[in-house]
Amino acid sequence: MNLLYDEAIDGPLPDIDRPALIKALREAAPGAALLHEAEQLRPYECDGLSAYRTVPLLVVLPETAEQVQAILRCCHRFQVPVVARGAGTGLSGGALPLAKGVLLSLARLKRILEVDPVSCVARVQPGVRNLAISEAAAPHGLYYAPDPSSQIACTIGGNVAENAGGVHCLKYGLTVHNVLRVDVITMDGERLTLGSEALDSPGLDLLALFIGSEGLLGVVVEVTVKLLPKPEVAKVLLASFDDVAKAGRAVSDIIAAGVVPGGLEMMDNLSIRAAEDFIHAGYPVDAAAILLCELDGVEADVAADCERVRAVLINAGAVDCRLARDENERKQFWAGRKNAFPAVGRISPDYYCMDGTIPKRALPMVLEKIGELSEHYGLRVANVFHAGDGNMHPLILFDANQPGELERAEEIGGKILELCVEVGGSITGEHGVGREKINQMCTQFNHDELETFHAVKFAFDPDALLNPGKNVPTLARCAEFGRLHVHHGQLPHPHLERF
Amino acid sequence: MNLLYDEAIDGPLPDIDRPALIKALREAAPGAALLHEAEQLRPYECDGLSAYRTVPLLVVLPETAEQVQAILRCCHRFQVPVVARGAGTGLSGGALPLAKGVLLSLARLKRILEVDPVSCVARVQPGVRNLAISEAAAPHGLYYAPDPSSQIACTIGGNVAENAGGVHCLKYGLTVHNVLRVDVITMDGERLTLGSEALDSPGLDLLALFIGSEGLLGVVVEVTVKLLPKPEVAKVLLASFDDVAKAGRAVSDIIAAGVVPGGLEMMDNLSIRAAEDFIHAGYPVDAAAILLCELDGVEADVAADCERVRAVLINAGAVDCRLARDENERKQFWAGRKNAFPAVGRISPDYYCMDGTIPKRALPMVLEKIGELSEHYGLRVANVFHAGDGNMHPLILFDANQPGELERAEEIGGKILELCVEVGGSITGEHGVGREKINQMCTQFNHDELETFHAVKFAFDPDALLNPGKNVPTLARCAEFGRLHVHHGQLPHPHLERF
Repeated sequence: MNLLYDEAIDGPLPDIDRPALIKALREAAPGAALLHEAEQLRPYECDGLSAYRTVPLLVVLPETAEQVQAILRCCHRFQVPVVARGAGTGLSGGALPLAKGVLLSLARLKRILEVDPVSCVARVQPGVRNLAISEAAAPHGLYYAPDPSSQIACTIGGNVAENAGGVHCLKYGLTVHNVLRVDVITMDGERLTLGSEALDSPGLDLLALFIGSEGLLGVVVEVTVKLLPKPEVAKVLLASFDDVAKAGRAVSDIIAAGVVPGGLEMMDNLSIRAAEDFIHAGYPVDAAAILLCELDGVEADVAADCERVRAVLINAGAVDCRLARDENERKQFWAGRKNAFPAVGRISPDYYCMDGTIPKRALPMVLEKIGELSEHYGLRVANVFHAGDGNMHPLILFDANQPGELERAEEIGGKILELCVEVGGSITGEHGVGREKINQMCTQFNHDELETFHAVKFAFDPDALLNPGKNVPTLARCAEFGRLHVHHGQLPHPHLERF
Repeated sequence: MNLLYDEAIDGPLPDIDRPALIKALREAAPGAALLHEAEQLRPYECDGLSAYRTVPLLVVLPETAEQVQAILRCCHRFQVPVVARGAGTGLSGGALPLAKGVLLSLARLKRILEVDPVSCVARVQPGVRNLAISEAAAPHGLYYAPDPSSQIACTIGGNVAENAGGVHCLKYGLTVHNVLRVDVITMDGERLTLGSEALDSPGLDLLALFIGSEGLLGVVVEVTVKLLPKPEVAKVLLASFDDVAKAGRAVSDIIAAGVVPGGLEMMDNLSIRAAEDFIHAGYPVDAAAILLCELDGVEADVAADCERVRAVLINAGAVDCRLARDENERKQFWAGRKNAFPAVGRISPDYYCMDGTIPKRALPMVLEKIGELSEHYGLRVANVFHAGDGNMHPLILFDANQPGELERAEEIGGKILELCVEVGGSITGEHGVGREKINQMCTQFNHDELETFHAVKFAFDPDALLNPGKNVPTLARCAEFGRLHVHHGQLPHPHLERF
């Protein structure tokens, strides 16, 4: 797998007159910080997918939307590609820089512009941290619902770019369900308002199109989010199973019973033991699988739902089912789950975290198949996932120092993602495509679908300067790595090749 | 207002060799019915917005997705515009035919292909009626949530085109929140799959872009919808207020209390009296406003929520608040609300139904302003609305036989929509733009935003053959009717003019 931008495959990037660009940027946006020394650029060479690194040509840090506009206009004039970056916590390399591109950090646009407790909305700049929105809304009893694990650090601008999810997205939705409006700057410096404070917006739904577009369509300079009343109470049930498939079926049963849990997470034995060793969460280390089911809302509702879910779990074959006795134990139960990745990191020199999604009916079959792959390749796989919405995070354990193990891990990973597509699911649940899954996109989509992506991208950014090489693969890349059928060796839109 | 397609404003349409087209369509899709006699075409001259009528050039009724593909390819070759139509219940003229265009009815693609009770999804053809999906899912205790008032007749294909809502969309979302995947045919006959059964899909979110695009991007041939477990019970509270503003504030208070009602509807005195006269729903005819608040879910939760909401309502100043004592009375309460439009029709020769949306904080102010407009123009306005999500349906009462009243009604209507935009809302909540609100789109969006719509439309349909003149106004139209600033009289993309 070649995951860095490869000019031979993805198309050549223009050579830039760096001193002239620096001069022009300083003139265009005098208030913005501009980094150009090697030691200043180094910290920006990767995001949360640190296996892949490229030092950018330059880094700019604007402080206002007007500076963003001036910078993009300037880069457009120089035809230099631009990669926007929030906090850099993304796990799929969406903010991986280009050696011939400008890295545009939104970190200094971090003002909370308005919190409106009557309409339950907040208007913020893109560099505001996810958790900071909830903190600002807390005095009104409100919060911002999507909660990626990185919420203490990640920014709302990055959340918009990746359509971030979180443990509670089963009940409260993804970023796209919680953002009402974004103001964006296009590559040629136009400011557009997409969406409104209304439930639906007339015309084409460019807001939903923009959310999750991974920096390909424009740069966000303002975000209006929905705020929700904080749930009065939250309770968590821990159920143990002697069989993974039974736990999988229990997930469907809970949903079918008409209860929408705040969170519904599943861990298999390998993850349970790793987490218990690390966190001492109180997990049953002999269980084949556990489910954590959180119920939140007003007190009387939650009490009734707990009883209901307990009955469903017992009926589905849980060998044990208990309610966290107090807030401390509830936090402990969650700490085990939230630290499952580092816990697995303690029992294996390396691991490779996948992010596929499958329809719930396929859960038992896919788990069985992963077991077979694990055995066939001789590598352990720990399964941790957002069971309620079918978003799996299989962790493939390997030792990069053992020759061939990395390759085998990547091979299992590829096969798991293909399996997800085969059963009607998708190659990413919440981490995005970025640079990491760019080749698998050729499996997920056919030629006509990829062409449509390119045509829509073209509508916003005809010169393909925004984050090239991410999210949507070039047709040339798919011809190289995917199953794409290229008719008589002709790519249909020569001007689209560089996307 | 000119609401029919006007070639002088919207751009010329090609003259078609009708006999040659008929011959070609018969050869391309021999299984599809083709209507071409005047008396066969007449029933298709309008949709639910019957004030505007145009007899189409031809009507075709395919029975399979392959026939749709063949028909679109054939129309593409002839460069003849195509307007797709579901049940024709739309209220904004989205399916209004073109005199020089083919009307493509999807009414015969009405098979339910699959109901999967484990994954809680159904796969259906576009001509399946909204309510028929819930009927097919009922044996599994499941249903399809969005419930437009026309749900007994309207089809899922039309719901996708209009992003249909309904009384319960506050809690359960619009069509876009309940559709997982669509298969569509583009104007040049490509079949694309947008979305997946997963919560999120990689690449650009073309599914959300497509939903609500009002037939501008492609024709739906298959829809995969989410099914939800049927709520165990539903209860409804009726609260009376002596002041409209108090009722408006009570809406915010309920949401702030952390309860998400299944429905939350408001009616003012004029609507209450009209509905009570007609339906005898048991409404308090002296109240300045009533709220209907439905709570649904599992029994214990609903009981607790009812107590909670009752306390909030009393606290907000309700002079009376009572629970429908049984299922009969609950249905009676809703019958009054659902028949509010025909009820108003009984007390006025004509009425004009608006569909604006506003942020909740603006509710008291906008209601006051509507009162002022009503007084100023000497026309009564009845207010009925989905209060929970700020979607208002002011009904402007007039008599078309009184000279000048229609014009005054249209003038108030225009001012109300502009007011909605001013306070941060939108010109349509759930009825769509269609042909009806095409001129107001010039108020809602600026030049750059409209250009972006055009560019995205161009990505799917470069010849602008799909439903031209609907949803997104031509820049020429905005120059004529809107506040659009046309720089030096130049329209930027001459090839986009016909959109």
